[in-house]
Parts: sequence; C-alpha cells; structure tokens
Amino acid sequence: MNEQYPSVLLEKAVNEFAKLPGVGRKTAMRLVLYLLRQDVAMVEAFGNAIITLKHEVKYCKVCHNISDTDMCRICSNPQRDASVVCVVETIRDVMAIEATQQFRGLYHVLGGVISPMDGVGPSDLQIDSLVERIRKGGIKEIILALSTTMEGDTTAFYIYRKVEPLGVKLSVIARGVSVGDELEYADEVTLGRSIVNRTPFNGTV
Amino acid sequence: MNEQYPSVLLEKAVNEFAKLPGVGRKTAMRLVLYLLRQDVAMVEAFGNAIITLKHEVKYCKVCHNISDTDMCRICSNPQRDASVVCVVETIRDVMAIEATQQFRGLYHVLGGVISPMDGVGPSDLQIDSLVERIRKGGIKEIILALSTTMEGDTTAFYIYRKVEPLGVKLSVIARGVSVGDELEYADEVTLGRSIVNRTPFNGTV
Repeated sequence: MNEQYPSVLLEKAVNEFAKLPGVGRKTAMRLVLYLLRQDVAMVEAFGNAIITLKHEVKYCKVCHNISDTDMCRICSNPQRDASVVCVVETIRDVMAIEATQQFRGLYHVLGGVISPMDGVGPSDLQIDSLVERIRKGGIKEIILALSTTMEGDTTAFYIYRKVEPLGVKLSVIARGVSVGDELEYADEVTLGRSIVNRTPFNGTV
Repeated sequence: MNEQYPSVLLEKAVNEFAKLPGVGRKTAMRLVLYLLRQDVAMVEAFGNAIITLKHEVKYCKVCHNISDTDMCRICSNPQRDASVVCVVETIRDVMAIEATQQFRGLYHVLGGVISPMDGVGPSDLQIDSLVERIRKGGIKEIILALSTTMEGDTTAFYIYRKVEPLGVKLSVIARGVSVGDELEYADEVTLGRSIVNRTPFNGTV
C-alpha cells in the first residue's frame, strides 16, 4: 500500500480512475471523493452502468456502430438512403455527422485508421466487411469522412485501391475554411484547398 | 431515448460519467468508449472499485479521515505527536500536508467549511467533535489549515470562538509568497501578508 493514501480501498478506486485517458492522479482523487459524497444508489448506478454496457453491448452487423440490437437503428431505418455509405473511424464520428442532420445515407464504422506506429493494420479495421458490403450491391456512392492526418490519408488511399475496381463512386468530405472563421487565421493548407475546391456561388451561401 | 445515441446502454453510461464534476458530455463519451475498448476484467475492476469503496469505506472515529479501520493509521501511530492537531477541510488536505513530511502531529478533518450559500452550517461539520477532542485533554496546539476564502475565514473565526476558552494554543499556517515565485507576480494581499509576517533570517532559508 502506498503510504500516501489513508485507505487501501480509496487507493484502489483512485488507481482505477487514473487509468482513464486524460485523468491524472489528482483528478482521479477528486472524482472518487465526489462519488463518495453521493448516496449509495447513485454510486451503484455509476459503477454498474459501465459494467452492464461492457457485458451487453452489441455492434451492428452491417455498419459496426454500437447498437442495442443486431442491426442498428440507422441501418434498419427504411427512410435512410441505403445507396450512399459514409465511412468513418469511430462511432463518435457517426454521432457528430448525425447531429448535423445533413446526411440521410448509411454509415460504415472502420474502428480506427491504419497506423503502423500503433500496430493497427488493415486487417484490424472493418475494411474487408466494407468491400463485402459493396460487392453485395445496392451501394452507389462511398463518402470517406476520415481524419486529415497521415494515418487518415493512408487509410483513405488503401480503401480507394480496394473499392475503385468495384465501380462505385468514391468521394471525400470537403475540406475548407470553417464556417465563422476568419481567413487570416486559417492555416495555409486548408485555405489552399478551399480555393482549389471552390464551389459555384449563386448569391446565397 | 435520446436520438443522438446509437444505444440506450451507451447513453446511460455516458449520462453517469457526465455527472462527474468537470466532465462534460463529450469527455464522458470519450471515457466510456475508452473503457469499452478495454477487456471485461478491467471494466469490472473499474466499476466495482468505486462501489466497494462506497460500501466499505470507514471514517476514523477520532479525526474523521477516510480509513480502512475504526481508527486511522495516523491517529493510531504512537510515533505521532498527539499534542498538536492540524484542522483541515478535506482528506485531500491531509494527503497534501502528509506529502510535505513536515508535520508529525495529528489531524482533524472538518468535512468542509461553513458556507451559508451552499447550506453548510457549523453543525454539518466536525466542529463539535473537535471541541470534544480538546476537552478530553492532551492537546496543546491547534493549527488551522483552511482555505483563505470568505468561507475559510468564517470557519476559522467560528472555531476560534469555540476553542479559545479551552486554553489551547491556536495558530494558522503561514501565508506568503510561494517558494520559487517571483515577487512581482505575487498578488498584493499575499505580498502584504508576507511582509507583515516576516520571519527571522539567520543566513539560510
């Protein structure tokens, strides 16, 4: 036992919280002491929510998004356009795009990007299942919505090589100056791309 | 169910994490997805550590610090000086002072400070038990190590009024310019106090 902690149980709880990304020892302590001040029911709800999620979580057999059922709400919704599939890294990206309410197609969650440095190869991602999905037919367009990083670009190129022979339209999301941003603060690469990929203007943005 | 979440279980877990102080919805999501990527044993250890702590935690019957036993390690250590008691707000303060290795006396954890705005009165704190401890005898000095806030000062004054008739020496920790700080960046009140409360200098700091 670490001399620093007045209780082994407290130390254990702090150690567990300190394993979370971005949570240091002091923050972990603060969170644990906060929970300790709550009533038993709230602490049990907290602890059990994550355990239940881990035990009972399902992933959609089509798009690999988290789901409560074998096929997720988006994939099983007949009102969505099954001919357009947006390829993303994580379920957080699905939620971010859904929040825009600008996309009515389906998704495909890769589960990450190709990153040799982190030991993530193409076989660790849901790329084969994407190819399989396209082969089954019905998909006209694949939109790549990956990070603009070395890993994201590598993954995009890998998918391009796999998908290109299958004859579906392949596109990437637009990169440009953020809405509300001032030009002088945009980085050069983004500003450059926004000029090269300019879009027709008919008087309204 | 919130349309934004692909899974009710996920939503529940995120809601629980978002209750933690300083944790917003996006951070909660990131933490939950991180735990979801870990193996079952790690997630169960995480969830159960806090539940076990809440169920089995004890508070020292003497100083009210968190403890695994009825009397904490500090209070039951015969090598500590039982004639000096340092009064602090929380167990985090005990840990902070212990880390300095400069104090060999005992502690008294109030459990907060008097704060009418938050509905915390003297009876919500371990002040009566402090008076009781002093009445039992054996304590020569009480050191107040409370926050330098309105609430901390109010609490210090309240304790002063209760303890003063009992004939023990009462002191407060020194306030001054932090070690390593440059004078010009110290706030005026702190700098002023550090001059008023200057200490004799014999060539070594």
